[in-house]
Amino acid sequence: MSNHRPHAGTFRWRGVNELAYKQEGEAPFKDVTRQVLFEDPALACQLRYFEVAPSGHTTLERHAHVHAVMVVRGSGRCLVGATVHTLALNDLVQVPALTWHQFRADDDTPLGFLCMVNVERDRPQLPREADLEAMRIDPAVANFIRV
Amino acid sequence: MSNHRPHAGTFRWRGVNELAYKQEGEAPFKDVTRQVLFEDPALACQLRYFEVAPSGHTTLERHAHVHAVMVVRGSGRCLVGATVHTLALNDLVQVPALTWHQFRADDDTPLGFLCMVNVERDRPQLPREADLEAMRIDPAVANFIRV
Repeated sequence: MSNHRPHAGTFRWRGVNELAYKQEGEAPFKDVTRQVLFEDPALACQLRYFEVAPSGHTTLERHAHVHAVMVVRGSGRCLVGATVHTLALNDLVQVPALTWHQFRADDDTPLGFLCMVNVERDRPQLPREADLEAMRIDPAVANFIRV
Repeated sequence: MSNHRPHAGTFRWRGVNELAYKQEGEAPFKDVTRQVLFEDPALACQLRYFEVAPSGHTTLERHAHVHAVMVVRGSGRCLVGATVHTLALNDLVQVPALTWHQFRADDDTPLGFLCMVNVERDRPQLPREADLEAMRIDPAVANFIRV
């Protein structure tokens, strides 16, 4: 891998493959791509770039590992725990351990964000019906989530 | 710390302090600021934002730990090993272990970049005269470096 990978336009890079966000059928999501920007045996974290197409959403999930997120393209919203945040360019989001979260792009623009995670990490958990019922007590959360 | 830290404009964030790049006199550099965007006991890496003012430069140094860099503001150049790269928005740079490196902003714009590093890492080494002599054999490198 070259030490310098120039931006090839619209958040694609030479030498970086666009990957499926998850396996189809593994979990609910809509129009999300994934690129691994940095992955190295000498690095204890990975830096990934996710892009949610207009009106798309990531999976509503939680896990023990922490997400460190920076928005680098477009705009949208995210749920972290019980709060829906409006996201603009260069905003920072931290998702604490075992906290339900979901990212959604606005209808007229993609939402692209960097996400730093530990290489050693657990698998995401999906909400059970009881979890969804608890989340839906708050109308703002009920209105936001996509499952 | 809030889970959402909105961008407050021109690469400053509420709840993120602008820090000295290094202690004055510790190493040669010119007009560089540092902000730690993500630092958490649950994360094995930190994500920092460095900004080099127009005509400024980081320290010419090397270390065993690896840098994973993404340009997010402006433009400039960097030395990685024996090569000077031209840097534009969203470019990716990896600095391998024990590789001399230096970042410079262009004269008319700042150079702002994210840098992911392991939390557990060694201290930078500065070049000795013999190292500089070896680097200066290549005129492009000799012309680029600032010490």
